[in-house]
Amino acid sequence: MYRTHHCGALNLTNQGQKVKLSGWVKITREHGGMIFIDLRDRYGITQLVFDMNRNKDLCEKAKKLAREFVIQIEGEVIERINKNPEMATGDIEILVDKLDILSKSEIPPFTIEDKSDGGEELRMKYRYLDIRRNPVRKALELRHRFTKEVRNYLDSKQFIEVETPVLINSSPEGARDFLVPSRLNQGQFYALPQSPQLFKQLLMVAGLDKYFQIVKCFRDEDFRADRQPEFTQIDCEMSFVEQNDILETFEGFAKHIFKSLKNMEFEGSFPRITYEDAMNLYGSDKPDIRFGMKIHELNNLVKGKGFKVFDDAEYVGGICAENCSEYTRKQLDALIDFVKKPQIGAQGLVYVKYNTDGSLKSSVDKFYPEEELKKWAEAFNAKPGDLLLVISGKKTQSQKALNELRLEMGNQLGLRNHEVFAPLWVVDFPLLEWDEENKRFHAMHHPFTSPKLEDIALIDTDPGKVRANAYDFVINGVEVGGGSIRIHQEELQQKMFGLLGFTPEQAQAQFGYLLDAFKFGPPPHGGVAFGLDRWVAMFFGSSSIRDVIAFPKNNAGRDIMIDAPSQISQEQLNDLGISIKPLK
Amino acid sequence: MYRTHHCGALNLTNQGQKVKLSGWVKITREHGGMIFIDLRDRYGITQLVFDMNRNKDLCEKAKKLAREFVIQIEGEVIERINKNPEMATGDIEILVDKLDILSKSEIPPFTIEDKSDGGEELRMKYRYLDIRRNPVRKALELRHRFTKEVRNYLDSKQFIEVETPVLINSSPEGARDFLVPSRLNQGQFYALPQSPQLFKQLLMVAGLDKYFQIVKCFRDEDFRADRQPEFTQIDCEMSFVEQNDILETFEGFAKHIFKSLKNMEFEGSFPRITYEDAMNLYGSDKPDIRFGMKIHELNNLVKGKGFKVFDDAEYVGGICAENCSEYTRKQLDALIDFVKKPQIGAQGLVYVKYNTDGSLKSSVDKFYPEEELKKWAEAFNAKPGDLLLVISGKKTQSQKALNELRLEMGNQLGLRNHEVFAPLWVVDFPLLEWDEENKRFHAMHHPFTSPKLEDIALIDTDPGKVRANAYDFVINGVEVGGGSIRIHQEELQQKMFGLLGFTPEQAQAQFGYLLDAFKFGPPPHGGVAFGLDRWVAMFFGSSSIRDVIAFPKNNAGRDIMIDAPSQISQEQLNDLGISIKPLK
Repeated sequence: MYRTHHCGALNLTNQGQKVKLSGWVKITREHGGMIFIDLRDRYGITQLVFDMNRNKDLCEKAKKLAREFVIQIEGEVIERINKNPEMATGDIEILVDKLDILSKSEIPPFTIEDKSDGGEELRMKYRYLDIRRNPVRKALELRHRFTKEVRNYLDSKQFIEVETPVLINSSPEGARDFLVPSRLNQGQFYALPQSPQLFKQLLMVAGLDKYFQIVKCFRDEDFRADRQPEFTQIDCEMSFVEQNDILETFEGFAKHIFKSLKNMEFEGSFPRITYEDAMNLYGSDKPDIRFGMKIHELNNLVKGKGFKVFDDAEYVGGICAENCSEYTRKQLDALIDFVKKPQIGAQGLVYVKYNTDGSLKSSVDKFYPEEELKKWAEAFNAKPGDLLLVISGKKTQSQKALNELRLEMGNQLGLRNHEVFAPLWVVDFPLLEWDEENKRFHAMHHPFTSPKLEDIALIDTDPGKVRANAYDFVINGVEVGGGSIRIHQEELQQKMFGLLGFTPEQAQAQFGYLLDAFKFGPPPHGGVAFGLDRWVAMFFGSSSIRDVIAFPKNNAGRDIMIDAPSQISQEQLNDLGISIKPLK
Repeated sequence: MYRTHHCGALNLTNQGQKVKLSGWVKITREHGGMIFIDLRDRYGITQLVFDMNRNKDLCEKAKKLAREFVIQIEGEVIERINKNPEMATGDIEILVDKLDILSKSEIPPFTIEDKSDGGEELRMKYRYLDIRRNPVRKALELRHRFTKEVRNYLDSKQFIEVETPVLINSSPEGARDFLVPSRLNQGQFYALPQSPQLFKQLLMVAGLDKYFQIVKCFRDEDFRADRQPEFTQIDCEMSFVEQNDILETFEGFAKHIFKSLKNMEFEGSFPRITYEDAMNLYGSDKPDIRFGMKIHELNNLVKGKGFKVFDDAEYVGGICAENCSEYTRKQLDALIDFVKKPQIGAQGLVYVKYNTDGSLKSSVDKFYPEEELKKWAEAFNAKPGDLLLVISGKKTQSQKALNELRLEMGNQLGLRNHEVFAPLWVVDFPLLEWDEENKRFHAMHHPFTSPKLEDIALIDTDPGKVRANAYDFVINGVEVGGGSIRIHQEELQQKMFGLLGFTPEQAQAQFGYLLDAFKFGPPPHGGVAFGLDRWVAMFFGSSSIRDVIAFPKNNAGRDIMIDAPSQISQEQLNDLGISIKPLK
């Protein structure tokens, strides 16, 4: 037996007991004829003490220990003189009388401390050492408890977890698939699922009524910051439901998650905002509503006053930053630079300082006298001391820029505390989005998303206006989940395919097995999928999903710890009947 | 809202209530001016009744319903005249006054009944209809409850579930990997994991102490009956443990599973049988101990009596089939044919009838008079009425044949009831097995399995004799799990690699990242993995894992429902930088 207790277990109630502990040497120090060692395992740290006067040989052995050696000791629990109230074991130490070295360690490439000196690249290469650090281990523990609560809740609501296959067929729609050449069926390929979408719909046709799965999904993207080629979804589907049934069920779900993991309760329902309102008020379909600072359109107030920039603009709108009227020239210039960055793309920024003395001062005084600016201030419900920031241009682009500006101001003003959570539903997404390049409509969600009943007539007259039974779950400006009510009526599905430019043959080739299934009594159904990595990262207070994945890949899709992907043997290529094309 | 209740919910306490139900039409029948419909959903069946005298139009509409139509009805819960005590809802029926058809169904290709008329191929093609059948749905429900209990138990013992990556590196050892060409790193490939073995060991180096994961694994095998290219493991690893710690932990685990899913309790510990005993007593390293009928070696008794077959044999041994002395010539011939089948491979079968009158009659009377046979009978502890069955030849081959014969006799005598469960541990597996073809040793378990401390000296003198800290968990003759204590000492690991014929360079190339990790203080650790599909299938009373997988593949590795794998586009091949070799 390697241990009687773990390293977080002992306290004064164990005083006088003979114990056996195992763990990692965190630190050793000598002091007045004694050697002290902090012994660490997953559960905590226990101080060991070796007394020169008691056992010189043992002390000599202990002196040779270095950081991260794995040792086993036997000794007696004694009361500490210098107690450490910060530690669970801080009242005691172990007076050691037996020491075994279980394995040695080279000097680790970075310190195993809460704040390490290792950069991300190095920590990823030695991820097994990184995980020894408290913050990383705690992230994995949080993830474990998170999935446990997910399962507990959904099980209690009669959802069944079903594993869907990983080796499936490639589907040309959407993002790129990872492909797997078949050895037994040469020339053919499996694909790894981007989501179990079609399978969960089949499970509804199969009558399972309530399905969920915590499941790996795969997307062969050109990697961007904070995307992973493999990621994990909480995938859910229900039968005989309308949109409101889904929202209510998963509002209960989210509340359970908040309560059990963050001990947070929410009064009443989560806000539900239409897509249209979200765009108009926040410039985003995933608004961060931890703070107000809503966008106001100013077209009516600002046009026709001789300022060509506004007169020519499709849209003029802005936000009101409270108590920022004293922003310096330098701060204002920084904001102008911020909105002009290519990824934000505004042409400029007009500001109005509503000074504490009640006067108003803007960067466009030439065109707008103080009484005009007063009207602007009223539109924002601004008060003396506030700062108005106004952007103009194309509507969508300006709204998006205002969204970025609003978030930036939220950051500057400390309004985006990562321990405050503001969940909401965004509903009534458009069914279709227009692809200007290919002059055709795409499904905004996917081709099985149902239109709102009251908008069905618009399909023939103004398809871009049709709203879908589609919804996103958003927390703090992050899209944590999304879903839709699916089409279960054959005629409507055919109409949708027509709208999306699929010939019946193409639809059959691509979705044949789902369409076949729909010939045998599909129930009305809908669902939602949540991004586990993202939600856990948010609860962990991290902006990167890599922090909550045990072995993440880097932005080039490589696992730098195991150095994957890698070359394979010619024999393996031969087995698969494929060859590698020479690079052009 | 589609329903106020599901189809298994209503009983006499609901009498008089107005309800709304949705579900599938299971069957319709007319009787005396009434139309009766069984409405089915996941939760049960409720009888609907349409009364011609009340509402003729409604009845006309109901008459047009066919099997598997999805409908929604409103009506009143009334007491049934002909109650059905077999059904939860058997005391009531719904007098319908509103009917909506939610979707229609073609005639399903097989009947949606507990005993269907569909063959397996057809049922797999239309798996979404197959799952509507009670037995298939119940298998998936059982699997859900099983994984839930696995997680509950392991969580309560402080195991953390950690997701390990699916896109990893190919490892040339063991079975063939499925490979995934990398688009961003052309000419390089990911592999899908055959198990998370190396990652779980890294998590121990990382100090996680207790890890588990219910995880998909992949093996590109030439498919045999009841193998699937993707399968699910319950994968576990612990630090600071010896073999006994693992066996005790997972005995508790197994007992929890038996108790919670089968309501079965076991007195005391599960039997632990050494590999050697298992081979000698059962001819198998996964003995079915639901019944005795152990194998006895007879070499000492039978040799030197002039029967050349036995004299020349390395091994003579047999089993005693109780109360089978009256087996007919035909039955005995069938047994002889059975053992001579190529996959069993015995040369023949000698039998001794211990007649109820106390006389003994054998197929080798010429060489062995009755007093000799008496000694055989004593060796078996046989009694009048029993039948001895004896096989001779090479030792290993004969033992294996006796195992098959024993299982066959167990079947014939009804000793293998699939509602009886006899779990055990098989321990002390050999560390190495000799590969006659390549004249080298292979690791029986894997190259990180540790030898028994007391056998370490044998590594240099007689490596084939070294026993490993390796164990299998066996239920009813099926290997349900297996694992080992790993090597954490560098010198021992190097020695093992030498024994297995790895040069240091090869070892580094193949296991480099684990060996690197082991430089930084690996703890002693070990683990076990259980085959989820197999264990659930056993609890479900099925011999095929396909029965407990929602969407299984066939023996050629094809998903015949979605017709995967399939061809991909030239554009996809170009993206990946690979080409398909023409078939030779």
